[in-house]
Amino acid sequence: MKVWTASVIALITLIQPAQHARADDQGLPAASNVPGAELPSIHPDHSISFALKAPNAVSVQVAGGDGLGAGPFPMTKADDGTWSVTTPPSVPGFHYYWFVLDGVAVNDPASETYFGYGKETSGIEVPEAAAEYYAIGNVPHGEVRAKSYFSKTTGEWRRAMVYTPPDYDKHPTTRYPVLILQHGSGENEAGWTRQGRAQFILDNLIAAGKAKPMIVVMDRGYASRPGAPAIAAGSNAWLQDLQGAFSTFEDVVVRDLIPAIDASYRTIPNREHRAMAGLSMGGMQTLFITLKHLDKFAYIASLSGPVVPSLRIEDLVAGNNRPFDAKTAYGGAFADPSAFNKRVKLLWLGVGSAESDQFKTGIGGAVYALRAAGVHLEFYESPGTAHEWQTWRRDLHELAPKLFR
Amino acid sequence: MKVWTASVIALITLIQPAQHARADDQGLPAASNVPGAELPSIHPDHSISFALKAPNAVSVQVAGGDGLGAGPFPMTKADDGTWSVTTPPSVPGFHYYWFVLDGVAVNDPASETYFGYGKETSGIEVPEAAAEYYAIGNVPHGEVRAKSYFSKTTGEWRRAMVYTPPDYDKHPTTRYPVLILQHGSGENEAGWTRQGRAQFILDNLIAAGKAKPMIVVMDRGYASRPGAPAIAAGSNAWLQDLQGAFSTFEDVVVRDLIPAIDASYRTIPNREHRAMAGLSMGGMQTLFITLKHLDKFAYIASLSGPVVPSLRIEDLVAGNNRPFDAKTAYGGAFADPSAFNKRVKLLWLGVGSAESDQFKTGIGGAVYALRAAGVHLEFYESPGTAHEWQTWRRDLHELAPKLFR
Repeated sequence: MKVWTASVIALITLIQPAQHARADDQGLPAASNVPGAELPSIHPDHSISFALKAPNAVSVQVAGGDGLGAGPFPMTKADDGTWSVTTPPSVPGFHYYWFVLDGVAVNDPASETYFGYGKETSGIEVPEAAAEYYAIGNVPHGEVRAKSYFSKTTGEWRRAMVYTPPDYDKHPTTRYPVLILQHGSGENEAGWTRQGRAQFILDNLIAAGKAKPMIVVMDRGYASRPGAPAIAAGSNAWLQDLQGAFSTFEDVVVRDLIPAIDASYRTIPNREHRAMAGLSMGGMQTLFITLKHLDKFAYIASLSGPVVPSLRIEDLVAGNNRPFDAKTAYGGAFADPSAFNKRVKLLWLGVGSAESDQFKTGIGGAVYALRAAGVHLEFYESPGTAHEWQTWRRDLHELAPKLFR
Repeated sequence: MKVWTASVIALITLIQPAQHARADDQGLPAASNVPGAELPSIHPDHSISFALKAPNAVSVQVAGGDGLGAGPFPMTKADDGTWSVTTPPSVPGFHYYWFVLDGVAVNDPASETYFGYGKETSGIEVPEAAAEYYAIGNVPHGEVRAKSYFSKTTGEWRRAMVYTPPDYDKHPTTRYPVLILQHGSGENEAGWTRQGRAQFILDNLIAAGKAKPMIVVMDRGYASRPGAPAIAAGSNAWLQDLQGAFSTFEDVVVRDLIPAIDASYRTIPNREHRAMAGLSMGGMQTLFITLKHLDKFAYIASLSGPVVPSLRIEDLVAGNNRPFDAKTAYGGAFADPSAFNKRVKLLWLGVGSAESDQFKTGIGGAVYALRAAGVHLEFYESPGTAHEWQTWRRDLHELAPKLFR
């Protein structure tokens, strides 16, 4: 692999001396780099230096998720064929990114990859000052387990990732509550631990006594009936046929996953000790599934997930211009607010303040309508973050302490 | 992500009608593809069709590991800007690959990635007829756990992957033997489960009663003392300073990893119930570590790992032309063959028959010299496979039944 030497870094800062970083500031390698890679590097102001050797290329840019900045950022070629750029300051958190090499989106060989956009994608971790809650601390650590289980719904073995809390194996008679925690569109069951660092968020909260020890189950949010055509992760097909795609996943969760988890782990297998949460598409799935199965869930959280007036895509698209109707939404789940409030221990809706208006007005409107109807809920707005993992890390950090109380 | 439609596949086979595959043979999507990706596709003769859309590129090739064939294979551009090729028949197994896009090695967005060559790399799984031993079968499955442990040697938290056998949690008083199983140069602790499918090999062997239920620990084979400069995974630096780099990892294994595993899992913590095996660099590390610590290991396996006359790189390079000296090699560990044979329950050396002469003569020469000296060992030659994962999957499949007997 390409090892970036000090001289290359010096060259890069020489090329871009005044753009965003001081020439004498080489920055620090990102924690998301492959071992030994000096670039991408992050400067104190959160500007980021990227480089790619491509002597024959005509144009190279770096582009990525919301938090990276406005981009794409054109890169400049040095005599040795290395293209580089230092971006304007980015926001803290995890950002997907990629190079555009003569029009082709390619990964950075210096970065670990993360499943997003339906494929393996480079990612960069920009530290947030004083945000220790998702660092790997000197505290007892749980495990993240790859669990194979057979789904009758899909006719295939599936893989769920399961977080077991610290010392799970040391207390072989203790039983734990369960949080089912889902990724977003284009991501997969590894997202919450790799991009989200959910295991470290939980480890730290549990060590501080702020969250109850719990099992966290992260499944693959795609499911097709046997014989159905393969659909790409990240395809809009998963969202355009909500009843079809979501109801298949609903069957997986209710009929296959929950029984498999209850049979394999020391859970407390009742609704008062079962929560479901998800981000974006996973938030939509959470509301779709839990509100139909309140006999199975008492804690419900949708993080940056569109809250839809109905479950048909036509209505979803049109719905941003229609008021959310608490009486009819989700099959009337909220029609009797008093009964809902008694039954559901926590309804949580979250959004980042820097998300697009589509998310903010949609979720904010539902929050307004639900509260106006008398439905109890917690609304969390993550300050300054977009439709990105820093928003959802914060959600989990705020949400987990309120579960199973 | 790019979804390959039937018309694109039809176009590709139209472009390459007679090269290696019949025009009416579209092949099957590789199991290593991201969900929904039709290409790469594998034809019945194990030729492979690849494609990449790159309208502005001047040249695109596909290149990869030994088993892919002679390569790199030039790709041909269609009117819509999609480059494609169907390779000659490949050998079965897992092959790393990449596109060379105007001289830059880039991943295939349609493939999952696997850590190899010190970076995330595309990989393709070519099925082997009737080789069910690494398929996910309808048998009880163990778990693969990400275990965080603190290393005093490196001053950092490290991640090991730990396979626990089926029903480990169901028998909370049963204790198990431990196999430490190491990856090769440029790979990491996920290699044996992602590329190697070790968990499914063990699940199937255990279900068939052919291997004893065991815990398998797969650690990251790189370790540096605190303050040492970062070295890229896959760098020759890990091999050029054998005593330095290997002895740091030796300390991690002996002082940090084994105690952490014995404290966290229900192991049988003695040498008769502890094995170490590794592939390539991991095989070198296995011999280096176990032969110095026969009080800790009774089973030793080096899979395609150079067996070195001494541990200095100068000798390693020159050693291929020198006879392996069983009396002096590895600090005299074999000097008393009779005592060695009594103490070590199994010494296993493996190599693929299609590996380069460097490996075959080096390992074969050591086998000859050790046997001539009276050292008992098992030598496994994988027929027709190269310095690739199919060799090591077969090693594990043959080796595991012989452990802890």
